[in-house]
Amino acid sequence: MLSIQRRHFLVAMGGAGAAASLRPFAPAPARAQEDQALPEDFAWKDADSMIVHTELTLETERDAIGTSGVTSKDVLYIRNNLPKPGEDIVAAPDAWEVSIEGVNEPRSLTVGELKQMGVETVSSVLQCSGNGRGFFEHDASGSQWRTGAAGNLLWSGVPVRAVAEALGGVAEGRNFMTSTGGEDLPEGVDPKEVVIERSVPIGHAMEHAILAWEMNGEPVPLAHGGPLRTVIPGYYGINNVKYTKRVAFTEEESDASIMRTSYRVRPVSVSGAPDQPSMWEMKVKSWITRPLADVQSGRVLIYGVAFGGINALDRVEVSTDGGENWQEARPLGPDLGRFAWRPFVLAADLEPGTYTVTSRATDTEGRVQEEVTEPNHRGYDYSGWRVLAVDVTVV
Amino acid sequence: MLSIQRRHFLVAMGGAGAAASLRPFAPAPARAQEDQALPEDFAWKDADSMIVHTELTLETERDAIGTSGVTSKDVLYIRNNLPKPGEDIVAAPDAWEVSIEGVNEPRSLTVGELKQMGVETVSSVLQCSGNGRGFFEHDASGSQWRTGAAGNLLWSGVPVRAVAEALGGVAEGRNFMTSTGGEDLPEGVDPKEVVIERSVPIGHAMEHAILAWEMNGEPVPLAHGGPLRTVIPGYYGINNVKYTKRVAFTEEESDASIMRTSYRVRPVSVSGAPDQPSMWEMKVKSWITRPLADVQSGRVLIYGVAFGGINALDRVEVSTDGGENWQEARPLGPDLGRFAWRPFVLAADLEPGTYTVTSRATDTEGRVQEEVTEPNHRGYDYSGWRVLAVDVTVV
Repeated sequence: MLSIQRRHFLVAMGGAGAAASLRPFAPAPARAQEDQALPEDFAWKDADSMIVHTELTLETERDAIGTSGVTSKDVLYIRNNLPKPGEDIVAAPDAWEVSIEGVNEPRSLTVGELKQMGVETVSSVLQCSGNGRGFFEHDASGSQWRTGAAGNLLWSGVPVRAVAEALGGVAEGRNFMTSTGGEDLPEGVDPKEVVIERSVPIGHAMEHAILAWEMNGEPVPLAHGGPLRTVIPGYYGINNVKYTKRVAFTEEESDASIMRTSYRVRPVSVSGAPDQPSMWEMKVKSWITRPLADVQSGRVLIYGVAFGGINALDRVEVSTDGGENWQEARPLGPDLGRFAWRPFVLAADLEPGTYTVTSRATDTEGRVQEEVTEPNHRGYDYSGWRVLAVDVTVV
Repeated sequence: MLSIQRRHFLVAMGGAGAAASLRPFAPAPARAQEDQALPEDFAWKDADSMIVHTELTLETERDAIGTSGVTSKDVLYIRNNLPKPGEDIVAAPDAWEVSIEGVNEPRSLTVGELKQMGVETVSSVLQCSGNGRGFFEHDASGSQWRTGAAGNLLWSGVPVRAVAEALGGVAEGRNFMTSTGGEDLPEGVDPKEVVIERSVPIGHAMEHAILAWEMNGEPVPLAHGGPLRTVIPGYYGINNVKYTKRVAFTEEESDASIMRTSYRVRPVSVSGAPDQPSMWEMKVKSWITRPLADVQSGRVLIYGVAFGGINALDRVEVSTDGGENWQEARPLGPDLGRFAWRPFVLAADLEPGTYTVTSRATDTEGRVQEEVTEPNHRGYDYSGWRVLAVDVTVV
């Protein structure tokens, strides 16, 4: 348990060590104290709402997630595996081309052409596979995200199903939809080692995937994958390939490293391999967003967000005593659908003291958010409600 | 009819006259041709998506409204009756104070205090009373808005009902909720002549009104009324008072000019008076957003937005022959609730030619969007589907 605490403090204090407590579990730290400048490429983000991990990784402050249900692009996290392409590719978004392969009549299509093939709007959680890595005990490499590598967006685009139908249908024997990103690849490296190329099961893709040109009512910003992003509702962020330049229906999963050995769930110290589960379907999860700091005694409104992952959310409960007792929280705003998150609130009457506040979501299949997330080598998706708790001091 | 055309062209061509056609009705012009710079206060808006009327009035381009349902602040219209207060009032939004009057225990509350009193999230259309003024035949003074003085937002805030309850309940005999804006008033003028102060019936306010601190997942921007905006779902924009500094439950409507004589619906050339209907409840309305320019023959996706105004939307139909024949359109994305708009789409197979494309919404009370909007002195809310049509050339 000491190492959980160490990690918390390392994250919260920008790398400096701090004394560990002996509490039976480790509530999450409050707002990060650093005040690091935004990288130039993302200078338009709301600086007060972002934690800067690196030039390519920005996290949303835990209490910057509001109650609207939809996450503004100004506070949405950034996690790019490669530097993004130049702004020129979003200057004329309708001209962007995507190659459609593994259909009976393969061809390239512009975004302008896609816009005449069909359209759907879906709200879905975008969550980095490593969200919550900072809560694991073991020393998983990568950005030490806490809760803020996640957001909920509205996406509009053409269903992959409609594109396949327009091109004569999917060719025989295809089991996966494989999307390739349009990033420039560094020279002198085997492209397979660096290309962003992800495969997902064709059944889910044909039912739910879209090629999206719009996010939250605007053309998808370059920073978030415009002019065309693959959106796989219910799947971790990595599968939502940015600047999509190729969509192929394939017999096998891609042999790119990012598919073959990366984003594979395995025990600590085990190498990644294709026979391990890939980071596809998201888990049921929730967390408290506010309050994080001291509050006045009396009626306290406790806020958070909850989602079912691959399934719809059924309900969310809140505990103010570290999981001994639970009360059902009230969902806020419109239900944005199966793959969206839902803000929630619970009004609690709290006397002065310290409270360990956490939340626990249940999906429509009866799956309950886990209490503890077992370690996995890369520290993917810490979802355990015990460690996602926050300590609130009521004065 | 000539004067309708004249107005269209005046708007489209930035004031220059143009030859009028003799078409039986006047489809709306395509994208505005001007390329006027954004005012400094709103330089953060998306310039390509905005039509600049004045320093205080910006309209959203008709085809800049997407299919996400929620309107990004970057493209949301601006219509301020007075210059907005300084940015300092949103620097510490929780410290903003609002005086609550006409309750049994009147007092001032900070936004921070309001946040502990209750919360609801509602999606509602924000539409300027004068939206569509540019489509009227008569010479109504004011911004010549076409379709773009409207957007749909997600708002979070405390229900007015909860605030009243917390302060001992509404005092006896109160019939209206009156909100006052926090703008600095110009000197040397009777404050009653310029203050932004609007009254709405108390029944609707107690059921639906909120005092909102969040818009689309972020603190309400100053430009849109932050740190605290009165939101009256289903009511025209003017009732959604910005920078709210006072909320009073009153026996009578405010005697400020903006309530007493402005925003009153009356015949052309008649002066405003308190016995005329106030611009409160919105009408059922829809319009086509795309395509506005030439398109290729074959399958054409026709997009638009529709809302029920004070009631929920039931359905929307599209005609490609100027209203002779109608087909039911498909709603897009999640249903955001009674007061929200809903994007829609219709796939039409169109041969080369010119098509007059329009849409017609019906609310859940069976009220059908009007064909023609009768003139009213100030040119409020042109909603008639015949004139809101667009001409589309299929090549």
